[in-house]
Amino acid sequence: MGASVNPERTLDDALAEAEGRAGVQMHDLMTELYPICRSITGDGVRQTHEILRKYAPLQSFEIPTGTEVFDWTIPREWNIRDAYLRDPEGRLVCSFREHNVCVLGYSTPVRTRMCLEKLRPHLHSLRDQPDVTPYLTSYYQEDWGFCLPHRVLEQLPPGEYEVVIDSSLKDGSLTYGEVILPGESQEEVLVSCYTCHPSLCNDNLSGVVLCAALARCLEGIRNRYTYRFLFIPETIGAIAWLAVNEGLVGRIKHGLVATCLGDAGPSTYKKSRRGNAEIDRAVLHVLQQSGAEYRVEEFFPSGSDERQFCSPGFNLPVGSLMRTRYARFPEYHTSADNLEFVREDALEDTFIKYLRVFQVLEGNRSYQNLLPKCEPQLGKRGLYSLVGGQKRQAASQMALRWVLNFSDGSHSLLDIAERSGLDFTTLRDAAEILCEHHLLAEL
Amino acid sequence: MGASVNPERTLDDALAEAEGRAGVQMHDLMTELYPICRSITGDGVRQTHEILRKYAPLQSFEIPTGTEVFDWTIPREWNIRDAYLRDPEGRLVCSFREHNVCVLGYSTPVRTRMCLEKLRPHLHSLRDQPDVTPYLTSYYQEDWGFCLPHRVLEQLPPGEYEVVIDSSLKDGSLTYGEVILPGESQEEVLVSCYTCHPSLCNDNLSGVVLCAALARCLEGIRNRYTYRFLFIPETIGAIAWLAVNEGLVGRIKHGLVATCLGDAGPSTYKKSRRGNAEIDRAVLHVLQQSGAEYRVEEFFPSGSDERQFCSPGFNLPVGSLMRTRYARFPEYHTSADNLEFVREDALEDTFIKYLRVFQVLEGNRSYQNLLPKCEPQLGKRGLYSLVGGQKRQAASQMALRWVLNFSDGSHSLLDIAERSGLDFTTLRDAAEILCEHHLLAEL
Amino acid sequence: MGASVNPERTLDDALAEAEGRAGVQMHDLMTELYPICRSITGDGVRQTHEILRKYAPLQSFEIPTGTEVFDWTIPREWNIRDAYLRDPEGRLVCSFREHNVCVLGYSTPVRTRMCLEKLRPHLHSLRDQPDVTPYLTSYYQEDWGFCLPHRVLEQLPPGEYEVVIDSSLKDGSLTYGEVILPGESQEEVLVSCYTCHPSLCNDNLSGVVLCAALARCLEGIRNRYTYRFLFIPETIGAIAWLAVNEGLVGRIKHGLVATCLGDAGPSTYKKSRRGNAEIDRAVLHVLQQSGAEYRVEEFFPSGSDERQFCSPGFNLPVGSLMRTRYARFPEYHTSADNLEFVREDALEDTFIKYLRVFQVLEGNRSYQNLLPKCEPQLGKRGLYSLVGGQKRQAASQMALRWVLNFSDGSHSLLDIAERSGLDFTTLRDAAEILCEHHLLAEL
Repeated sequence: MGASVNPERTLDDALAEAEGRAGVQMHDLMTELYPICRSITGDGVRQTHEILRKYAPLQSFEIPTGTEVFDWTIPREWNIRDAYLRDPEGRLVCSFREHNVCVLGYSTPVRTRMCLEKLRPHLHSLRDQPDVTPYLTSYYQEDWGFCLPHRVLEQLPPGEYEVVIDSSLKDGSLTYGEVILPGESQEEVLVSCYTCHPSLCNDNLSGVVLCAALARCLEGIRNRYTYRFLFIPETIGAIAWLAVNEGLVGRIKHGLVATCLGDAGPSTYKKSRRGNAEIDRAVLHVLQQSGAEYRVEEFFPSGSDERQFCSPGFNLPVGSLMRTRYARFPEYHTSADNLEFVREDALEDTFIKYLRVFQVLEGNRSYQNLLPKCEPQLGKRGLYSLVGGQKRQAASQMALRWVLNFSDGSHSLLDIAERSGLDFTTLRDAAEILCEHHLLAEL
Repeated sequence: MGASVNPERTLDDALAEAEGRAGVQMHDLMTELYPICRSITGDGVRQTHEILRKYAPLQSFEIPTGTEVFDWTIPREWNIRDAYLRDPEGRLVCSFREHNVCVLGYSTPVRTRMCLEKLRPHLHSLRDQPDVTPYLTSYYQEDWGFCLPHRVLEQLPPGEYEVVIDSSLKDGSLTYGEVILPGESQEEVLVSCYTCHPSLCNDNLSGVVLCAALARCLEGIRNRYTYRFLFIPETIGAIAWLAVNEGLVGRIKHGLVATCLGDAGPSTYKKSRRGNAEIDRAVLHVLQQSGAEYRVEEFFPSGSDERQFCSPGFNLPVGSLMRTRYARFPEYHTSADNLEFVREDALEDTFIKYLRVFQVLEGNRSYQNLLPKCEPQLGKRGLYSLVGGQKRQAASQMALRWVLNFSDGSHSLLDIAERSGLDFTTLRDAAEILCEHHLLAEL
Repeated sequence: MGASVNPERTLDDALAEAEGRAGVQMHDLMTELYPICRSITGDGVRQTHEILRKYAPLQSFEIPTGTEVFDWTIPREWNIRDAYLRDPEGRLVCSFREHNVCVLGYSTPVRTRMCLEKLRPHLHSLRDQPDVTPYLTSYYQEDWGFCLPHRVLEQLPPGEYEVVIDSSLKDGSLTYGEVILPGESQEEVLVSCYTCHPSLCNDNLSGVVLCAALARCLEGIRNRYTYRFLFIPETIGAIAWLAVNEGLVGRIKHGLVATCLGDAGPSTYKKSRRGNAEIDRAVLHVLQQSGAEYRVEEFFPSGSDERQFCSPGFNLPVGSLMRTRYARFPEYHTSADNLEFVREDALEDTFIKYLRVFQVLEGNRSYQNLLPKCEPQLGKRGLYSLVGGQKRQAASQMALRWVLNFSDGSHSLLDIAERSGLDFTTLRDAAEILCEHHLLAEL
């Protein structure tokens, strides 16, 4: 990866270089971010931003507690230094220092002793997955609690427990970050991830490291679109960002919510609310051409921040390209969503798919065939044995014909890709060659 | 069942009460109607009306013989008192008193003796179903005849037969009935059944008893729509009704032809000619949500009275919700279509499906999300643990979100039901709750 | 077959007569045309026209070398008298007189001796099909060569070979032919075949003999459409024809490219670029109704002359009804595509399908139901037991009802055929009967 701007460098170059490297780099960054205790507010988010700034020009913003954002209000800021639960024998049952998911997110400060009976309502576990610690929060209803494996919970002896949560919940601010990479146009591609989960990897960190890697990669390229990467707390962050930036949402032409990107499952695409936006078609084209298994889901109004971007008052063309969808893998929202669960090769494959989607968005244009009556004579222009590799030649011949035949003013290259079954970049290269030979003009 | 108008009573109440009762009641009424010899005209129809008036406010109408109704003319009125056929030994071969289908419908009066050879063209049987008596008529071509099991026909001895048909065919009138239940709106839901078959159950009486039960049930409820139930002779009755009421067909917003509703087969829906009318979508939604097997047929211009309602000059949104479709069950138009063939549980299941369809029609509206930018904060309004039952809670949460997200002025609740896969009433209830919280307004 | 114009004769008559005869006649003509060495120009084409004139009123046209036709230029005319290749022992390796495909099409004249090594680049074979001679041409790049079985090529002894190609390549003209059969309307049905292949049967001659037979058949019938049969060299001929006739392409309402029509495979239809033109729907209807297996391909911009007719500047409604598609059968473009490969029964089946397509095009009209409110009373008009054959009667009853119900001004007979699943001619006959009874009027 290199961050200097190079007008000659293209997404194709970036793709060629990604293989065998991008996955390791993203996983290394994830390892660095893993121990931090993040939430929808607090210093964990700021620490995360500091680390990300080493990779991409991230700008941080603070929105004060009490600010009204549409129907919501920015909550108080939560910070936590330590927390533990000791049984009557003084043995550690839960320790924040061992694993930060053991504390109910947004727990109010507690320092007391209480019998098991009174403690019980504050203990959370998963009966179905007795060996893992669940991840729970209580942002908008004051509460405190510990999460622990059900097997541990069941064996807790009666008696008096020591309960310590050294947290604070007071006026402060909500922190979010943006990386903006200006392109030739003010029109934007939005990629959004969330930074509000503590030590959880696929659901959260995979999005953060992917966005950091994409931003770093795109920074070195002159792009058609402006790329905006959002690092926001889920839900309240998306709502706050939209409230603060309402005036510029019209620039967002395409968008993706990046979450659950590093597990071993096949890619899943959840369509935008529009269902047939260019981003939807671009992602589906890339998934089809990948040759790998994939799943497609129609938009539904639960999930991640597409709920806000696709609320009816905005209805932005924002989909979500994931691997296994949230709530579909058993490790979801448990301590088992850890550094081992996320695989380097899966992260890299996702990274490549995102770049391929950007290739389509960047290259998708409509052209006009300048000799639309009958075919032009390709032979006299040397266009019969044109493209280097033997294998690509037949495809290229067909690509030239498809582009010529359907560049009638009402088909974009992506339309032609869908109709022909040919890969977008093959058609894009064919269009470029035909433009050079004055057989085609960009519309 | 109770017939007093109660503005608090709803279709939901009626549905809750139907189970375990509606089927028995309909079958009892069918048993009462079964012995009567009905035809497209005559006293059998009037007798049927008399009985129905015990259940619902049926109004009877008479259209005189000779009245021109579009391309047709009301025929002479047919009545029959007795009919029989005796073999040369004086043994009864056919007896109207034993089973009225043994007489060719609209048979002219006969009282004579003739040899088997001359009699033969007047005897009708089914070679493929040798044990049952077929049901045949000759409304528009003067004729007389007997129908009998093929096995009996084959064994008739030669010799002179006694032939008696004590019928009359003279100027009179065609009788049809209507139950009109006024709703808040003059817009109508039409449900049509036919009263022209003699002792036949699934094809004919099942429609009559269903319409009577529906009318009785709806009479006690304050409805949005006006409900009109037609009890007409098939074809000529529908044509006559349309001719007489041409001025008000514009009020008919939804309609169903009720026939073949009590056999053990799965439900079948034959779409209206429009194919995607609200009635079509409402019925399909109910069938999908039923969880039971069902069949769907596109409109075709043969069948029952949808042929007239969906003729191109009217093209009304009228489909037909049946069980096994006419001509698809071997008992159809034979003496085997009897009281045993029609089952209480099947009648009741059909009754419930009709009520569910009415629920959709009554409740289908479009709403406007009043906070369309991002999601409203449901938690602060206590809308997270709202609806009573545990099981329904998750669905209800989703229902609230679906209604909010798609209430953008261009989606009705039925649109949202189709898109979400959730049951219509769950969405309807969610919409009501959101209206109470001023998050939604009816359009 | 009979060529005298007979206003009473119909396509239905022609179809009835075709069975058992058309296939033999077409194969006989193919046998006559087979030995001739055709190319995109030259005397072989003119000879072919001479023979065809015995069957149909073919008019020949000449376009001089050097004429510019859109992006192309009419090439020099090629003629060949003899060619052979002898090995060092004087044995014939290739002989034009034995099989004309052994010469690379458009070979420049050669008369020399050369060693195998220098000769080698001029010899062409198929490694995968070692026993057949491939068919190759070099129209626009001057070259000469021989084609031969790979098994022969591999065993050529070293030494000096005698190479003789007695051809000429000089200014002349390109020859194409037309048969125009005027109909009631100037609107045209275009059927195009190509005449540029030497002794090859399925790919080339099958189209020529089919077009000749269709022209001969249609000549005796008074048609609604004008039929135009083109006998052109592939690609350059289509381009030239379109350039010369650009002003009249607006008349072409339907078109088919006739190629690969006589092999044993199922019919294949390649749709026009429009994809849902009337010709596409007519062909699909005929194929569906045939009861036989068939294949459908969406338009793609390679193949035969549909590439030119469907170039974006013309976008004519021209599809291609074939049997096995070019490049999909191993005999394609080899000496194995011979008189045995093409079967009489397959040619005849194709001929019948083309006539059936013309039946649909000729008969496809929209009608208005003159009694659109309810059904007209068919019985009083004797329309209940109307059509002769017992078997057709039920279908005919349904046909009457379908035509009546959907003749609402927005459905053509073909629309009704698609919706009903009934055969087009059954509906067409029903419409005719209904017109006679003043129940229907042509729009």
